[in-house]
Amino acid sequence: MPDRPHRRRYRVGVTEGNLSRRRFLGIAAGGAAIGATAGLGAAAVRSRTDAVSSPHAAVPFDGPHQAGISTPVQDRVHFTAFDLTVANHFEMITLLKEWTLAARRLTAGLPSGSLDPADVVPDDPPSDTGEALGLPASGLTLTIGFGPALFDSRLGLTGQRPPALADLPYFVNDSIDPALSDGDLCIQACANDPQVALHAIRQLTRIGAGVVHPRWSQLGFLPSRAVADPQATPRNLQGFKDGTQNLDITQPALLDEHVWAGADDGASWMAGGSYLVSRRIRMHLEPWDASPLEEQEATIGRHKSSGAPLGRASETESFDFAAVGSDGKPRVPLTAHVRLAHPDHNDGARLLRRGYSFVDGLDQAGHFNAGLFFLAYQRDPRRQFVPIQRRLSRNDSLNEYITHTSSGVWACPPGVGPQGYWGDTLFR
Amino acid sequence: MPDRPHRRRYRVGVTEGNLSRRRFLGIAAGGAAIGATAGLGAAAVRSRTDAVSSPHAAVPFDGPHQAGISTPVQDRVHFTAFDLTVANHFEMITLLKEWTLAARRLTAGLPSGSLDPADVVPDDPPSDTGEALGLPASGLTLTIGFGPALFDSRLGLTGQRPPALADLPYFVNDSIDPALSDGDLCIQACANDPQVALHAIRQLTRIGAGVVHPRWSQLGFLPSRAVADPQATPRNLQGFKDGTQNLDITQPALLDEHVWAGADDGASWMAGGSYLVSRRIRMHLEPWDASPLEEQEATIGRHKSSGAPLGRASETESFDFAAVGSDGKPRVPLTAHVRLAHPDHNDGARLLRRGYSFVDGLDQAGHFNAGLFFLAYQRDPRRQFVPIQRRLSRNDSLNEYITHTSSGVWACPPGVGPQGYWGDTLFR
Repeated sequence: MPDRPHRRRYRVGVTEGNLSRRRFLGIAAGGAAIGATAGLGAAAVRSRTDAVSSPHAAVPFDGPHQAGISTPVQDRVHFTAFDLTVANHFEMITLLKEWTLAARRLTAGLPSGSLDPADVVPDDPPSDTGEALGLPASGLTLTIGFGPALFDSRLGLTGQRPPALADLPYFVNDSIDPALSDGDLCIQACANDPQVALHAIRQLTRIGAGVVHPRWSQLGFLPSRAVADPQATPRNLQGFKDGTQNLDITQPALLDEHVWAGADDGASWMAGGSYLVSRRIRMHLEPWDASPLEEQEATIGRHKSSGAPLGRASETESFDFAAVGSDGKPRVPLTAHVRLAHPDHNDGARLLRRGYSFVDGLDQAGHFNAGLFFLAYQRDPRRQFVPIQRRLSRNDSLNEYITHTSSGVWACPPGVGPQGYWGDTLFR
Repeated sequence: MPDRPHRRRYRVGVTEGNLSRRRFLGIAAGGAAIGATAGLGAAAVRSRTDAVSSPHAAVPFDGPHQAGISTPVQDRVHFTAFDLTVANHFEMITLLKEWTLAARRLTAGLPSGSLDPADVVPDDPPSDTGEALGLPASGLTLTIGFGPALFDSRLGLTGQRPPALADLPYFVNDSIDPALSDGDLCIQACANDPQVALHAIRQLTRIGAGVVHPRWSQLGFLPSRAVADPQATPRNLQGFKDGTQNLDITQPALLDEHVWAGADDGASWMAGGSYLVSRRIRMHLEPWDASPLEEQEATIGRHKSSGAPLGRASETESFDFAAVGSDGKPRVPLTAHVRLAHPDHNDGARLLRRGYSFVDGLDQAGHFNAGLFFLAYQRDPRRQFVPIQRRLSRNDSLNEYITHTSSGVWACPPGVGPQGYWGDTLFR
């Protein structure tokens, strides 16, 4: 790990102004993809929902809420949790300011610094590692979260810990690896290109050297929406459509009710922010794949091919949990995943999920080390994730086929204004 | 691991005929993407190079050479090596026939079996795991290779081992993990969607249960060409353009000279096949990122931003290894990677590379567990990869920043005719 003075070498470069990664390389501007990455000015006035129509486009960084929560889901995630390596309030603020400058540039499709020989300080490393040169913004969003650990005595933040940022309890069947869980901070990088997401995490890691150190990371993917139908509900690795009933990001009232923390929720600095629960859910694919279709569908509560609720014809039909089959039993079993997770059975509690599939090679037995990296945003995990998961962990038929192996809960502060920085409502 | 009779449940389904994954789901046909996956008949007449123009399209499976070698490189790889779990010639042939049927369907964008209730045998698991339902063929290619181990006494193939399939020697600086190396067989799945590549490997793994068992796997990626410029040379994780001087797949004479095994090369069953060397090359990104730009460029032998040879202006210019700088030293250092790897310094030996970047999370120190999954096809590793790598392993400046951690050498048999099966020239 570089010593702290060394870190200064990685300061965000600004000498190349608003040159995009493509223009920096001397590629002629022109076409939608280029326009979308042509600089901060252009990016800032684009609507965030434009990203739906072009996987190349930049998603604005500044706004009342952080991007990467209610903005459209991209194809890839690169998530990293960090530990603080210093206990210094000033160093932390300095890093958050540097990270914000870099994040604003990276999400606009800019390099974090110039590789032009005229801008390079002799014997200094380049301020950008270069693997995203020539690539468009690719819908990159960077979202920061603060873990419960950040609010211990080191930075004097004990009194600022939001009540909603409560430690998650133990759930039945949990098999959590502490080394791959929690942390002081996290960064969620989502993009439509894995190389762009990696590049962003790598620049932020370099800038943070000497103040924070990576603790664990998780990569994930969805079907490539530039290749497949972008409107289709993606299927998870159990082969089922996953996300049909997710919160509708185009309904601000729903987001205010279920996702955004309010000023009166117990921590005013979190107003406009959201709480993230991260869970790495290993799926035991081999026994799942050996189970009959009927059992798979009874376990989930939906038809596999169509995604329709059991007994219904189309994916978007609503559930009739009172319906019984010809055998007199509930058409959707009492232990089916969708029944237990449904808002009707959880006092209306809902989550804004942003889940990604993962494959981390094979385990020692030669089985797929794969599953779902579950990311869920909410207003208060104590009333949303925790009761839902308590219910699921005890009764869900799906537990036979899954194990939770990593866990985290994070306070994601509100969005940043043009002059602001990540977490400024907490640290100012 | 399922017992062997169980395996029969996973037989390749055929009842749904030529229905594509999309048509099976009742999605109306229409548009280029749908047409490209509309069934075996249509796929079989498409030119393999059409895949360049559409990341959705199917790449024909049948042909004189296996697809996935000289066909255009896709965005993602999912590579798995298998060990034999039985020593039975007949079981092996049966599996190769079943795999071929499945591979032909999967690469055409078809499910490996139907999920239609009318086709499902009660209490049997579905013949397809479902996660690729609705996804196009996505340029999927499946390529099989046989390792040296397959030619031991178990299957009576000792006399058939090609001389070119020699065990790779130890190279200076190797740090090979035997558990993540070698194997009896390998399957290289490449596609423009990670979910499609995983799906294919998963179906073949299921079909193989009881005969072969997964030994190790490696996933990799390139920049998403549906998002980025498909004509640009991709950059590797060291930030340099990688592949500028790769063999040109549109030049059949070059491929005949450097890639395809000939009938007189010592193993007539390999005529039209090729030898694959797989190396997982861990890149130590943190010290690399801390090194000055000048050192990085001297290590590789190219300019980082443009990709041009040192001292030249554009990527495609040729090297002048005799040029000296104003300091009287060679402009391209004697230990630069591109100098040592260049055909001019290796008796003209060339490789057809199909490399992918990988990020396998963090290592225990919190550093990126990342690098290059090097896949190189060639006519005879004894005259191509081995002497080049011997030279590189001793003198390459790049060795300060990389470690080879997995190794394999594979005989990839020739392509398959419409009535043939993978490896039929060896097993018939």
